[in-house]
Amino acid sequence: MTMMAGDDETQDRPRRGRSGRSERGGAAARRAARAGAGPGQQLTYIRRALKPYEVLDEEALALVEANADTVLEEIGIEFRDDPEALALWKEAGADVRGDRVHFPKGLCRQLLKTAPSVFTQHARNPERSVEIGGNATVFAPVYGPPFVRDLDGMRRYATIEDFRNFVKLAYMAPSIHHSGGTVCEPVDVPVNKRHLDMVFSHMRYSDKPFMGSVTAPDRAEDTVAMARILFGEDFVDQNTVVINLINANSPMVFDETMLGAAKVYARANQACIVTPFILAGAMSPVTVIGTLTQVLAEVMAGAAFTQLVRPGAPVLFGTFASSISMQSGAPTFGTPEPSLVSYGAAQLARRLGLPFRTGGSLTGSKIPDAQAAYESANTLNSTVLAGTNFVLHAAGWLEGGLVSSYEKFMMDIDQLGMQQRMCEPLDVSENGQAMDAIREVGPGSHYLGCAHTQANFQTAFYRSSIADNNSFEQWAAEGEKTAAQRANQLARSWLETYQAPPLDPGIEEGLLDFIAKRKESMPDAFA
Amino acid sequence: MTMMAGDDETQDRPRRGRSGRSERGGAAARRAARAGAGPGQQLTYIRRALKPYEVLDEEALALVEANADTVLEEIGIEFRDDPEALALWKEAGADVRGDRVHFPKGLCRQLLKTAPSVFTQHARNPERSVEIGGNATVFAPVYGPPFVRDLDGMRRYATIEDFRNFVKLAYMAPSIHHSGGTVCEPVDVPVNKRHLDMVFSHMRYSDKPFMGSVTAPDRAEDTVAMARILFGEDFVDQNTVVINLINANSPMVFDETMLGAAKVYARANQACIVTPFILAGAMSPVTVIGTLTQVLAEVMAGAAFTQLVRPGAPVLFGTFASSISMQSGAPTFGTPEPSLVSYGAAQLARRLGLPFRTGGSLTGSKIPDAQAAYESANTLNSTVLAGTNFVLHAAGWLEGGLVSSYEKFMMDIDQLGMQQRMCEPLDVSENGQAMDAIREVGPGSHYLGCAHTQANFQTAFYRSSIADNNSFEQWAAEGEKTAAQRANQLARSWLETYQAPPLDPGIEEGLLDFIAKRKESMPDAFA
Repeated sequence: MTMMAGDDETQDRPRRGRSGRSERGGAAARRAARAGAGPGQQLTYIRRALKPYEVLDEEALALVEANADTVLEEIGIEFRDDPEALALWKEAGADVRGDRVHFPKGLCRQLLKTAPSVFTQHARNPERSVEIGGNATVFAPVYGPPFVRDLDGMRRYATIEDFRNFVKLAYMAPSIHHSGGTVCEPVDVPVNKRHLDMVFSHMRYSDKPFMGSVTAPDRAEDTVAMARILFGEDFVDQNTVVINLINANSPMVFDETMLGAAKVYARANQACIVTPFILAGAMSPVTVIGTLTQVLAEVMAGAAFTQLVRPGAPVLFGTFASSISMQSGAPTFGTPEPSLVSYGAAQLARRLGLPFRTGGSLTGSKIPDAQAAYESANTLNSTVLAGTNFVLHAAGWLEGGLVSSYEKFMMDIDQLGMQQRMCEPLDVSENGQAMDAIREVGPGSHYLGCAHTQANFQTAFYRSSIADNNSFEQWAAEGEKTAAQRANQLARSWLETYQAPPLDPGIEEGLLDFIAKRKESMPDAFA
Repeated sequence: MTMMAGDDETQDRPRRGRSGRSERGGAAARRAARAGAGPGQQLTYIRRALKPYEVLDEEALALVEANADTVLEEIGIEFRDDPEALALWKEAGADVRGDRVHFPKGLCRQLLKTAPSVFTQHARNPERSVEIGGNATVFAPVYGPPFVRDLDGMRRYATIEDFRNFVKLAYMAPSIHHSGGTVCEPVDVPVNKRHLDMVFSHMRYSDKPFMGSVTAPDRAEDTVAMARILFGEDFVDQNTVVINLINANSPMVFDETMLGAAKVYARANQACIVTPFILAGAMSPVTVIGTLTQVLAEVMAGAAFTQLVRPGAPVLFGTFASSISMQSGAPTFGTPEPSLVSYGAAQLARRLGLPFRTGGSLTGSKIPDAQAAYESANTLNSTVLAGTNFVLHAAGWLEGGLVSSYEKFMMDIDQLGMQQRMCEPLDVSENGQAMDAIREVGPGSHYLGCAHTQANFQTAFYRSSIADNNSFEQWAAEGEKTAAQRANQLARSWLETYQAPPLDPGIEEGLLDFIAKRKESMPDAFA
């Protein structure tokens, strides 16, 4: 950049300086770990030093809670096609009419007293085990898309190879603390068998904690059986090793499939995330307070149900918040209303004493462009500031959840690294105060070479793995790449260098035997 | 902008149709106003209903304040090449040695008691006047870039036509509350004359409040003189009609140019934004607490100086926070450390009783891609949640402030609309609670057609003017456009439909006469 006439008026413009400082040894490793700059150094789950941001005052919270109690008692929640569930509710003192359960005031809250406010989900590598609840935040990848946007820019159906690739990338990503679940739908594997390959992929290609299958009770049973092979039978009964997504069929319905999976997991002492899947305006009222009321009622009913099945089984207060476009019915992300719902729901969850799940890096954009980034950043910022404990869809989500994107994944994990840094305690030590540096430098000089800067610069600032902060000229000389193009290169290089974590050969054989036998017992159908 | 096939499904695009003030009343106006969907309905400045987010506890705040007092007393701040300034400080009781001023403990705080914590900056259209301070937030456009990225995708030097275009777009943008200052550098106008054309452009092509020239004391005098023509002499003396950027030359220096401009404006009862321009690691220590300490010391000295010049003159606590890349020296944006500095500085400003300026939509990206959006969104989210009162660079900033971008401007104002919506009070009325809707719909149905949805959907959700939330198929059929391409179309259509606000012909003539005379008196030099 050459200075030109009148340049002195452009006051808020940064100066650019010199380049190059060699990296090495311990400091480089520390830096890499803190920067989220590449595979290798892993960060443990976040312990938030900053307090959550809250949008509801006491009066509004009490109002929502009272209204949710009214919904539970007066309108009720349907537990469909599950006589066992209805019998459990009747026994617990609820007023059951057909599939509709009406809850006497206080019943759900009473039942929820046995649910833990914090629990550990164990990983096969104990260093990767995570806490869920309290001031902990855990990032997990995208869940559910049938499509991928691949590294050649094609949008196509996902395969089991894509599935393994996303597991590998999540394993390598320092700020992804969890292997997730359906990182994409491997549609090249028959639908009745694919859960086996998915669960195995998490177990084999990662050592981080993971999620189980919820699409049928027997698939949940298979998940638990495989977890017993991996962790040992007793360990699984006494500890939580798998966490599972139990969506409400909003408004105010839990269906047979989800109830079936919830029963399997709760009985096995495994964790359920009870999540009203809300596109406000379709599945809930168009207002924030109305949506929060319904969400609270649904979660209280669903979460209390897990405690009927097995008191003490871990259960999360989940919320998936989006607004619907009143013109086309399409969901919209990154807008103010879902953020407000997330903030409010997090407060309600804390008052209920349950760990909280919401958000992620959500967007409706078809490609990893500015829309994707604005929407994802808005969602992620409110997710983290809300004090969310479990963040599904934290990386890789595109097109309203229809697409898992490699490029978006790499861009998002960079953002997750920033969020993790943001949650660290502020350093108020003598070194953090830096008074000696201010004295040493004094007016009119600069801090580039001072002792304090030399001692701290390796770890002082988060270093993005995606952002290009070079000069325009250098960026142009390097081909005018977009962030998505740089993310593409990074994903390729990570996948090339991936190395599987070790797994006991006896356990691997046991898992493969189990899968082979289960597959043999199933019809070879895509249905 | 012609409507195209399938346009009915492009729900999240603004209805452009008509321009100017002709659209009004009823649902359409409310919708446009709340959606930030296009020119026409203007939103007044934000009155935040949500409380600021705070990252420093009482202990940390007291520590920073005590350390800043030590910096002021022990190290001191330089007021360079301005004997008048040094004399004022001496008279006030400071210990002046050469250009270096040492401040007895409590002196700056004492002087700052005369500075207003909230004031009004008047616009020539009284409806566009803004409050600065308290729970008010004002968005102003990008400031300073010598380059533009134009609507043909060229990166080139900015011209006075670009300057006028950005003034026009800011005038039309519902969530831009302020016309700003150097929206770009019109480098085709001689540097000694361009301030006249810039100030005139704000006065003529917008009716929103604006900023004055600070690059030389006589240019500040010209600004005040032109303001007197526009508003009347008495009005200007008694009211604030122009706000001005007075940057510290960090670390711990105020230079002659900035002091000269500050004196002109403070004397004229006009507002100064005293802003340490910080790339942490170069102009301040690499730590957050160290940076906050230096920022507080610099602002206290600079802001107190304005009160020496004229007690009661409005002055802001400004902070421009960025971190430097220790590898290349380039500034980085949207990372955690600048956000933490902004949050902390906002708290310090509130404790000092001064209105606060920071942030904006900052990015180091060369193009309006995902990097630009992630970084801008991270910065803007922390800016607004910090409780910032005056947000410069809220729209259009690219490439670390070297470039004003039309496309980025259009994308950013959409984000500003979302932030404005986010700051509105939550509706806890009976309508907001939506209990009748929940009763009407009941389990297993949907809210799309219910009475409550029908009554509220026009204004229930923020509607983006940039996001595409159509199906993949429709998006593909429409040419697979990026957010930047949609922003390009929108900027073109706005500029086509721009209509200047009326201005009294006598005043316009007075301004043009003044400018002609001033220009005649100057050498025709680019220097």
